Amino acid sequence: MEYIKSKIRDVIDFPSKGVIFKDLTTVFKDPRALHIISWDLSQLYRDKGITKVVGIESRGFIGGSILAAELGAGFVPARKPGKLPADTISISYDKEYGKDVIEIHRDAITPDDIVVIHDDVLATGGTMAAAYNLVKSLNPKKIYINFIIEISALGGRPNLPQDAQVDSLIVY
Amino acid sequence: MEYIKSKIRDVIDFPSKGVIFKDLTTVFKDPRALHIISWDLSQLYRDKGITKVVGIESRGFIGGSILAAELGAGFVPARKPGKLPADTISISYDKEYGKDVIEIHRDAITPDDIVVIHDDVLATGGTMAAAYNLVKSLNPKKIYINFIIEISALGGRPNLPQDAQVDSLIVY
Repeated sequence: MEYIKSKIRDVIDFPSKGVIFKDLTTVFKDPRALHIISWDLSQLYRDKGITKVVGIESRGFIGGSILAAELGAGFVPARKPGKLPADTISISYDKEYGKDVIEIHRDAITPDDIVVIHDDVLATGGTMAAAYNLVKSLNPKKIYINFIIEISALGGRPNLPQDAQVDSLIVY
Repeated sequence: MEYIKSKIRDVIDFPSKGVIFKDLTTVFKDPRALHIISWDLSQLYRDKGITKVVGIESRGFIGGSILAAELGAGFVPARKPGKLPADTISISYDKEYGKDVIEIHRDAITPDDIVVIHDDVLATGGTMAAAYNLVKSLNPKKIYINFIIEISALGGRPNLPQDAQVDSLIVY
């Protein structure tokens, strides 16, 4: 994991003053780092019978789709409102300023599915908690939650559903 | 390719009246279809020495990141303005109504790179032509252009750079 950590770029004052942003683009663009991410993510779920990986728009599409392909599962995008063309279900959740909404296709998850929901970074956990409730409303057999990075100082873990297994490759 | 075609969903009147939208989410969520896409995309570039795959936000992140992982290359996101945290270059281009802008990190591509730029669907080609010019300004050795679907009735091919090799898995 030291190699991955060495490729993460700290960007000062992004997206706003005082924030140190963990930039993963410098990980993804590095062939060896991308390969390690792909391998390490998939190893977490090898024996779990995963059938669908849900990736949260847009940065969660990157690790999520690689994880799906690696596991021989399907990939499902969770998107901002109005982007998915067919029948959707949606959920609204509180952000620092105001509310946000994410959607998935109603037929994206079935009761036979075993699901991993993936995002790149766990910060406050609000988006992932909403995505979990959205997926859970479609009654899959089981839901795992996955991040590449968890920033524990932001206290996101307690905001995630307590009955879900949560795995982060790297914890700061 | 018949299996992939059988999984594409035609959505009537999306995003606007009279348009038939080729929905690939029904391909990506199907494990076998996702596996075939991953294999078929990567076979196009096995002997090309690809070092970076650029995916166009956000649907191009899905096939693009899978292709990068499959080829042992790095993945680079081309994003809407203000989303990338570090130093970027950007390009503006004409859309049906008004203008749009895409960006990549300035350090994402180097003169040693051999690049595939990937998006899910070739429609009018405006976004891909802009992405090509953006990547070209960073002087990689070679640039390939790749789509899962090409909708030839929309006449996008002539709008792409004539010196680039363009490959689409499925042409309608």
